[in-house]
Amino acid sequence: MPGYVSDDLTPEEIERQSALYGPFTQAVRELVDATIRTTVADEEIKQAQAEIEALTARLRSSQLDGPFGVRFSQGRRGRPWGNSVVGLRNPVAPPLIIEKHPSGNGEVWSDFHLGAAYEGPPGLVHGGVSAMILDQILGEAAGAGGKPGMTGTLTLRYRQATPLGDLRAEGWIDRSEGIKTWAKGHLIGPEGITVEAEGVFILPRWAREAIAAQDPQKVTPSYFE
Amino acid sequence: MPGYVSDDLTPEEIERQSALYGPFTQAVRELVDATIRTTVADEEIKQAQAEIEALTARLRSSQLDGPFGVRFSQGRRGRPWGNSVVGLRNPVAPPLIIEKHPSGNGEVWSDFHLGAAYEGPPGLVHGGVSAMILDQILGEAAGAGGKPGMTGTLTLRYRQATPLGDLRAEGWIDRSEGIKTWAKGHLIGPEGITVEAEGVFILPRWAREAIAAQDPQKVTPSYFE
Repeated sequence: MPGYVSDDLTPEEIERQSALYGPFTQAVRELVDATIRTTVADEEIKQAQAEIEALTARLRSSQLDGPFGVRFSQGRRGRPWGNSVVGLRNPVAPPLIIEKHPSGNGEVWSDFHLGAAYEGPPGLVHGGVSAMILDQILGEAAGAGGKPGMTGTLTLRYRQATPLGDLRAEGWIDRSEGIKTWAKGHLIGPEGITVEAEGVFILPRWAREAIAAQDPQKVTPSYFE
Repeated sequence: MPGYVSDDLTPEEIERQSALYGPFTQAVRELVDATIRTTVADEEIKQAQAEIEALTARLRSSQLDGPFGVRFSQGRRGRPWGNSVVGLRNPVAPPLIIEKHPSGNGEVWSDFHLGAAYEGPPGLVHGGVSAMILDQILGEAAGAGGKPGMTGTLTLRYRQATPLGDLRAEGWIDRSEGIKTWAKGHLIGPEGITVEAEGVFILPRWAREAIAAQDPQKVTPSYFE
């Protein structure tokens, strides 16, 4: 599948890039928050806009033709740095740092913070943002348990409103049959579970073929987003 | 409910703010895209980071204490300008501009573009982003049909991968009973329907009480996110 690129970066080079792009992207996340909340004078907004446009032009003077994709280094987990939920280089991503149970049983969790950029009803996390995060968590659970797949179905039950602020998400594998894995999870706020999720994750045909071929040159992803 | 603020802005003032903040926020969206895709030299990244941090500090010199919330002007639809999907002032929002059938029957639709910031698998829309957009579309359908509510449940069926690029979302009301409304919708890519959604939207108690009180000083929202 195009876009899963194997680039053979060394661990040192990955670390170097991560130390460069991590803080840069975080600075843009702070700007996103300030863009929503600023109350400075109109002239200052216009001045800031002009500076941002100039900065963007400089960054675009050399850039990828399309989206970031997912890069793999040989035998290593991919770097989904453009991903909307976990992407190190994506200012839209909070980003979630997802922890995995060392046994590889598929248990995953993440503690994270959602600010003004993730608002739906006033002061609350957008219901769709909760869905977005839980899709990622369930997909990561499937992958962490050695049963990766792309989302087939996803069902969310909203138990109570989720306030913006510090939150936790947890996911695990419920069961699996052949190419299908059923994963479950939930979002937890200061008053307990706010949203419950379950989904089916399905290993796509191109990945089944890549795995069957056992070709070391082919990428066989351990997860999909 | 705190955060639904009635501010009585005139239509002219709303238009003025919209003309100021719309292009400013769009400039930040372009910067977000460039942040993911840039391949300029490390020194240029560091320089850009320093400039962004200085810009953010200027914007934060006067800002709201918390998230944007939703502002209403008397008798008018709210301005959810901080909303993660439709927010005029939120760079995380694509943003969707949602059209409504003039009959008020609850049919809604939106044509929009998703770029690098919304990627999951390489070149494809993140499954969670599709969920986020459909949550908004279904909620808007419920509101547009005069049956607003907050998301109770949401179920998504992923029929085929959704490529990044130009997309369309459609939503409508399936049925309603008392405070519950069942809405349906889908996402459409160049090869047809990619994701189907259905959900239940429930009018929260505080809104039922505000509506029952018929107090013109109280906000009775026509939708929630």
